[in-house]
Amino acid sequence: MAEADESILNKGLEGIVVATSEICKIDGANGKLYYRGYSIGDLANGSYEETSYLLIYGRLPNRKELSEFSATLVRERELPKHIVDILMALPNDTNSMEALRTCVSALGHGARDPREVSLEEQTRMGIALVAKFPTIVAYNYRLRNGQQIVAPNPRLGHAANFLYMLFGKEPDQLDARAMDMDFILHAEHSFNASTFATRVTVSTLSDIYSAFTTGIGTLKGPLHGGAALEVSLMLEKIGSPDKVDGYVREVLSGHGRVMGYGHRVYKTYDPRARVLNNMALEISQKRGDMRYYEIAQKLEGIMAGEKNLYPNVDFYSGIVYHHLGMPADINTPIFAIARASGWVAHCVEQYKNNRLIRPLDQYIGPLDLKYTKIDDR
Amino acid sequence: MAEADESILNKGLEGIVVATSEICKIDGANGKLYYRGYSIGDLANGSYEETSYLLIYGRLPNRKELSEFSATLVRERELPKHIVDILMALPNDTNSMEALRTCVSALGHGARDPREVSLEEQTRMGIALVAKFPTIVAYNYRLRNGQQIVAPNPRLGHAANFLYMLFGKEPDQLDARAMDMDFILHAEHSFNASTFATRVTVSTLSDIYSAFTTGIGTLKGPLHGGAALEVSLMLEKIGSPDKVDGYVREVLSGHGRVMGYGHRVYKTYDPRARVLNNMALEISQKRGDMRYYEIAQKLEGIMAGEKNLYPNVDFYSGIVYHHLGMPADINTPIFAIARASGWVAHCVEQYKNNRLIRPLDQYIGPLDLKYTKIDDR
Repeated sequence: MAEADESILNKGLEGIVVATSEICKIDGANGKLYYRGYSIGDLANGSYEETSYLLIYGRLPNRKELSEFSATLVRERELPKHIVDILMALPNDTNSMEALRTCVSALGHGARDPREVSLEEQTRMGIALVAKFPTIVAYNYRLRNGQQIVAPNPRLGHAANFLYMLFGKEPDQLDARAMDMDFILHAEHSFNASTFATRVTVSTLSDIYSAFTTGIGTLKGPLHGGAALEVSLMLEKIGSPDKVDGYVREVLSGHGRVMGYGHRVYKTYDPRARVLNNMALEISQKRGDMRYYEIAQKLEGIMAGEKNLYPNVDFYSGIVYHHLGMPADINTPIFAIARASGWVAHCVEQYKNNRLIRPLDQYIGPLDLKYTKIDDR
Repeated sequence: MAEADESILNKGLEGIVVATSEICKIDGANGKLYYRGYSIGDLANGSYEETSYLLIYGRLPNRKELSEFSATLVRERELPKHIVDILMALPNDTNSMEALRTCVSALGHGARDPREVSLEEQTRMGIALVAKFPTIVAYNYRLRNGQQIVAPNPRLGHAANFLYMLFGKEPDQLDARAMDMDFILHAEHSFNASTFATRVTVSTLSDIYSAFTTGIGTLKGPLHGGAALEVSLMLEKIGSPDKVDGYVREVLSGHGRVMGYGHRVYKTYDPRARVLNNMALEISQKRGDMRYYEIAQKLEGIMAGEKNLYPNVDFYSGIVYHHLGMPADINTPIFAIARASGWVAHCVEQYKNNRLIRPLDQYIGPLDLKYTKIDDR
């Protein structure tokens, strides 16, 4: 095996700039995040539909545009019969990310060659997928738990309807608002692994269903989409605020990681965590159950002081999900539901100005080995 | 919109080295290709099973190992009933890449967290996918053409059995050999877009089924897996050797591309095309139909002389597929069937020494836009 030449290696592509983009700006040093130039602190006051429109079309909608866009999402929520059939036929141990991956792939059968599809049509197909993600996740969840599926309610917004289809009852206003805000904050985050992967798929001029299937399969990995779940499990394990100190010391002394802390890009407080911190407080107060929130506050203080590490978006998401009664295995699917809008924006941007994404590797194996006859081996 | 800073941009990641690897060496300047250190000219004399073993385990098998490995592939060819059910339920306009993408995703339901799966088990799961790819492609092809599916024949090797399941009769020795050789030559090609995409998916520690689904969706793009088909269409369009000259002039004067020529990595003759050139000649002679081969030879001379461009692997594949009677829409699936072995090797290598693949983009949109009330827009 040859020596690796570290000087030309870009492991994990860290710091490597792949393309220009007009979708998302992460200002890691100052802890700021912008979608299409708007601060997410501002956007969090609107709706997921508004943010989705902004990401996809590049500007904020007026009232008429927003209402038409929302109506499109409502109309596209329903699943074709053969997709419902597939969902019903899936083995019971199918998790929602797997169901999403298979159903999105199946929705793309007979897809036309993207070279013959206009960007407007690509966008429409993408929006139809944004609309269908919550339905697929909710149907899969209820089916594998032996419950009847609950058809979408056209009177409800994207977030409220998801909770309705998942739990079978209309959420109250704060719950719907918490879900909506969480969707907004997860809608986009530049070239993270799943979004980058969708762009690699598009870069061969493959279709948008293939790209979304790639995105789902990549987001599924525990290093990417699985972190909010790990946070919930950690908070449950810690159990009470007075046990935080001991927990942190134990984990850090064993070279373990405290979940929901630190980020490759943010070197300071994740701006999404800041918004969700307030929501986590509000929903904890309303529930009259401050335990997780107090554990979180204490943990935050210790981590900032001892490790100079700040919570990322997954951290306060974990608490919000807890209070929404979100089943643990729905955490990553929520991420996918939200991120679908970002994927549409990125796929369309890649189609618009495409270049095949094909890096190199550094070969460090042997060369010119002698091919021997099988009986001489 | 801000100016792009070209000096830090790595468009398409061209020339960027992402990782070390011990699987494949492409010597583009000298037109050489090695799998695990062995020249593909040598490997082409063996079988796809041998090459698959080599790629996956890193060394050539002895007779016992090869026979056990081949038996595993035979055993794993069969599809579970629910996958056959899905294939039967798919809309008739489902092409084989879509069927492959959906079925591989569905095969991965209930996949365990890769952090709990040993590399040996990952390898076994990958080999089972290598075994199943031909069955999925052949079943889908026959079903959508209203034909009965043909179950795998355990007496036949990987390539011969694929032709048998596809066409419903045992291939003769030369046809089986041509298919086998074509599989060997397509089995691996370092970090091309689809393989790189599988590694991005694995880099989040997602499962191998997700990675393969990503690979299929990425290979599906016409800039990647679709080229052999374009070659067949082009040869058909040219029609006869005396029309080559006029065709090339017309295409080049219109700034079009002659299909099957040039490669981002090879600056000289693609070594795979060299091997397939001989096979294309042999099979053309046997068929007593030299038309495509003669067109190809003429085209090669003109392109080398006028453009200093040489045929790539897709070029002579196109002729071999023509003589095998390969349906046009099976060209890309053949590529996937062959490449599956390379994907196993790359996924396992990525799991073994993982690092999240997450590049950056250069944001060139506006910043700090004022969020206005919806009625003010």
